[in-house]
Amino acid sequence: MTQSSDPLIIAGREFYSRLLVGTGKYADLEQTRAAVEASGAEIVTVAVRRTNIGQQADEANLLDYLDPARYTILPNTAGCFTAEDAVRTCRLARELGGWDLVKLEVLGDEKTLYPDLWETAKAAETLIAEGFQVMVYTMDDPIACKRFEEMGCAAVMPLAAPIGSGLGIQNRYNLRIILEQANVPILVDAGVGTASDVAVALELGCDGVLLNTAIAEAGDPVRMATAMRQGVEAGRNAYLAGRMSKRLYGSASSPLDGTFF
Amino acid sequence: MTQSSDPLIIAGREFYSRLLVGTGKYADLEQTRAAVEASGAEIVTVAVRRTNIGQQADEANLLDYLDPARYTILPNTAGCFTAEDAVRTCRLARELGGWDLVKLEVLGDEKTLYPDLWETAKAAETLIAEGFQVMVYTMDDPIACKRFEEMGCAAVMPLAAPIGSGLGIQNRYNLRIILEQANVPILVDAGVGTASDVAVALELGCDGVLLNTAIAEAGDPVRMATAMRQGVEAGRNAYLAGRMSKRLYGSASSPLDGTFF
Amino acid sequence: MTQSSDPLIIAGREFYSRLLVGTGKYADLEQTRAAVEASGAEIVTVAVRRTNIGQQADEANLLDYLDPARYTILPNTAGCFTAEDAVRTCRLARELGGWDLVKLEVLGDEKTLYPDLWETAKAAETLIAEGFQVMVYTMDDPIACKRFEEMGCAAVMPLAAPIGSGLGIQNRYNLRIILEQANVPILVDAGVGTASDVAVALELGCDGVLLNTAIAEAGDPVRMATAMRQGVEAGRNAYLAGRMSKRLYGSASSPLDGTFF
Amino acid sequence: MTQSSDPLIIAGREFYSRLLVGTGKYADLEQTRAAVEASGAEIVTVAVRRTNIGQQADEANLLDYLDPARYTILPNTAGCFTAEDAVRTCRLARELGGWDLVKLEVLGDEKTLYPDLWETAKAAETLIAEGFQVMVYTMDDPIACKRFEEMGCAAVMPLAAPIGSGLGIQNRYNLRIILEQANVPILVDAGVGTASDVAVALELGCDGVLLNTAIAEAGDPVRMATAMRQGVEAGRNAYLAGRMSKRLYGSASSPLDGTFF
Repeated sequence: MTQSSDPLIIAGREFYSRLLVGTGKYADLEQTRAAVEASGAEIVTVAVRRTNIGQQADEANLLDYLDPARYTILPNTAGCFTAEDAVRTCRLARELGGWDLVKLEVLGDEKTLYPDLWETAKAAETLIAEGFQVMVYTMDDPIACKRFEEMGCAAVMPLAAPIGSGLGIQNRYNLRIILEQANVPILVDAGVGTASDVAVALELGCDGVLLNTAIAEAGDPVRMATAMRQGVEAGRNAYLAGRMSKRLYGSASSPLDGTFF
Repeated sequence: MTQSSDPLIIAGREFYSRLLVGTGKYADLEQTRAAVEASGAEIVTVAVRRTNIGQQADEANLLDYLDPARYTILPNTAGCFTAEDAVRTCRLARELGGWDLVKLEVLGDEKTLYPDLWETAKAAETLIAEGFQVMVYTMDDPIACKRFEEMGCAAVMPLAAPIGSGLGIQNRYNLRIILEQANVPILVDAGVGTASDVAVALELGCDGVLLNTAIAEAGDPVRMATAMRQGVEAGRNAYLAGRMSKRLYGSASSPLDGTFF
Repeated sequence: MTQSSDPLIIAGREFYSRLLVGTGKYADLEQTRAAVEASGAEIVTVAVRRTNIGQQADEANLLDYLDPARYTILPNTAGCFTAEDAVRTCRLARELGGWDLVKLEVLGDEKTLYPDLWETAKAAETLIAEGFQVMVYTMDDPIACKRFEEMGCAAVMPLAAPIGSGLGIQNRYNLRIILEQANVPILVDAGVGTASDVAVALELGCDGVLLNTAIAEAGDPVRMATAMRQGVEAGRNAYLAGRMSKRLYGSASSPLDGTFF
Repeated sequence: MTQSSDPLIIAGREFYSRLLVGTGKYADLEQTRAAVEASGAEIVTVAVRRTNIGQQADEANLLDYLDPARYTILPNTAGCFTAEDAVRTCRLARELGGWDLVKLEVLGDEKTLYPDLWETAKAAETLIAEGFQVMVYTMDDPIACKRFEEMGCAAVMPLAAPIGSGLGIQNRYNLRIILEQANVPILVDAGVGTASDVAVALELGCDGVLLNTAIAEAGDPVRMATAMRQGVEAGRNAYLAGRMSKRLYGSASSPLDGTFF
């Protein structure tokens, strides 16, 4: 079976890759392009406040390397610490490229880069009211995730661990509860460090993973992008196949309990 | 980059898949064939005492489904609890098909299926003296693994967890120490449950993984075989790429310590 | 050294036990009393909506078993799903017994018993304005914990895992970051299952632990209460002593990195 | 209930502490004495090849600090890499002090300090034939542990992690299987780093813990010795009390599965 029979649907659009990638921290735009291509991603997120996608007419433009006809450009609000800043940033993105599918992140502080859920919720409400399709970065807090879904967010994106930490999924129980309750796509966003981390996320039933640092800071970013693509596919196929039950002994006739990880 | 520039060399032979699979517990031989094919494995292990590979001339023969011209058949001694039985089983395999690359396992009891290291070592010595190339199933015991290497084993195969348990890698520190000291291929054998488990094994630097139950007992074995193939590739590429360092905060200028997992 | 030189200070009051216990789910009030006594707790939390502490003049009263002259009674808002309900419950507690040190919990749903941070924050603001000393149950969300501290809460109480789950601490990184930033006592509340869980919490630097189910649902609640008392003391002493660094090898001259767990 | 109704019986002798401690790596003998006393240990292990317990008549003698009338002195074979050396060391101990209860360790290499199971088994056989009561340090290998029990060892002591690593228990499944099969005391030996580690070992059902570095290298060894004593008591009481079942949700009517950790 191919990916084509198992689409990821976000805001009514079909995607066949479940890996979303960022564009920061690369050596140069050519490396960005090569890594994005190797990742197989169809959705590429761009920090509007840091990356030139048309704001500076006379400088190198990311979109000359990543063709918007091929990739879905997902503007994000990285670097915003208030709802107001985040909303303004999304409006700017819409003016620049007509993008209304956005990734909202409103951070609580510069050190940990954890989201501020109150400011995030305020921004999400405003953006949804203005017609944006909001993919929202959040803590792995089941009640908050449900709130974002009920508010009308197009996708909810709980973190695995702090942005850029590479620590991998810290709380599988939270993700599991979030997934049980969800009616919109749940994507793990932030904290992934290597290919097995993304496989775990997909095996838990997450609809996709968004990452950036784990590729950009790898020794060989292009090869790591390939690894991440394979890790997502491995995890998705394992999830769809349905894993064996765990047992304490190989010869046990009755399995332990499959509900632990 | 393709797999072809990164061969796994066992007993002087080059392989381009790092996933080795067993042939037990499938619904039928056709499912076995389909799963093995999906796994991408080039080495297929067969329990000589349980599987017909020519011992019973008038019964269904696994080799009619898995062409020995295409696959390297790796006879194993599953079900042997003494060195004597294991040696006899390997000799039978050599008579049957001329195979001298064998997977040795001598189990300590029927319940846990853990290896008996003393009987295993005795069998390995005899088999090596008789010209066999021995891939040896063992505890994840660094001193035992070194001993098997020094004895002349072609590959050393520490378990991740009990055979058929699906618990995944239990002791990453042992594997790491085994890998640091090894001059022969180290393959994780037994205990793997899902695709992320194999990715982790390869990310640690293991040369390959051998598994059976995790595919055969999955809800959809053929799809899980695909997942395992992708998991091995993901893990190998992540290992070769070199993962980012872990940090406690995304914005930390100095990484935590990459030596933990 | 004795506990007396290492007080826990909450809202200006000194305590010498770092274990706080609940009073629900016991077989009867006599067992409640015996378990609380064995736990060594000085602060005992009581669900105002479920436990008779004077609301029903003619029924068995918990305070006949737990003398308020000996124990600090900490009324809590268990069972409240809105800020309004929680505030009303605290006001009732103040009328009943003059208690103004309260434990605030506002839950998001009946199934997971996770806190609703928005309703919790609303209730906390109102209660603080009315002169209550608020110990607040929250997600292990560093930004939310900081917010509760800045709002004037007397103590911040992140969960280890869902209330009553017994799963133990799920995200040590979150706790560590919360602790680094905190200027008020941080107590782990909810999700602890056994004595080693509380020891871990104290070793991380948490100021205390509040638990209920792990004692009340143990096979022998009174003995488990003793175990919890010892676990808190063990963890606190280990924290104050300063643990050895971790190393990969025993003989390594240089430690691995002490910052992982 | 007190410890006195729950003795640990080794080689027919009753002990009321389940913590055994070593005597190496302290600043001086006075600190050794103070830490041992704080630990509550009744059995104190001594490296015959490194510590003066009478071999050097004119030098400071450990036994002037740890009274053999109060403590059970347990000579050990630390620093031995062959069965022959270990046997010789035990014979020397018997000559020196009449000790026939010994802790046997035969190491595989100087770097990892992992045991060599083959040399250990050879030494154990000889020592048992010579009338020694052997407490044997081993890998956490269920088949090896069973072999040592069947050979007549007085206690079997699987490692938690490499000697001196402080990594804590790495493989709970192995310990659990070892415990299920055991008819002699099982004590965790080596690798423990802090008080919660020992609590976990006891909660799993281990009969005791032996440690040294985790106390001696703590910032404040005497306080850490206290923490370890409390950790052992906490873990033992939790084990005897019987912990609550784990659940995914607090309000779940049926528990998850108690067999995971």
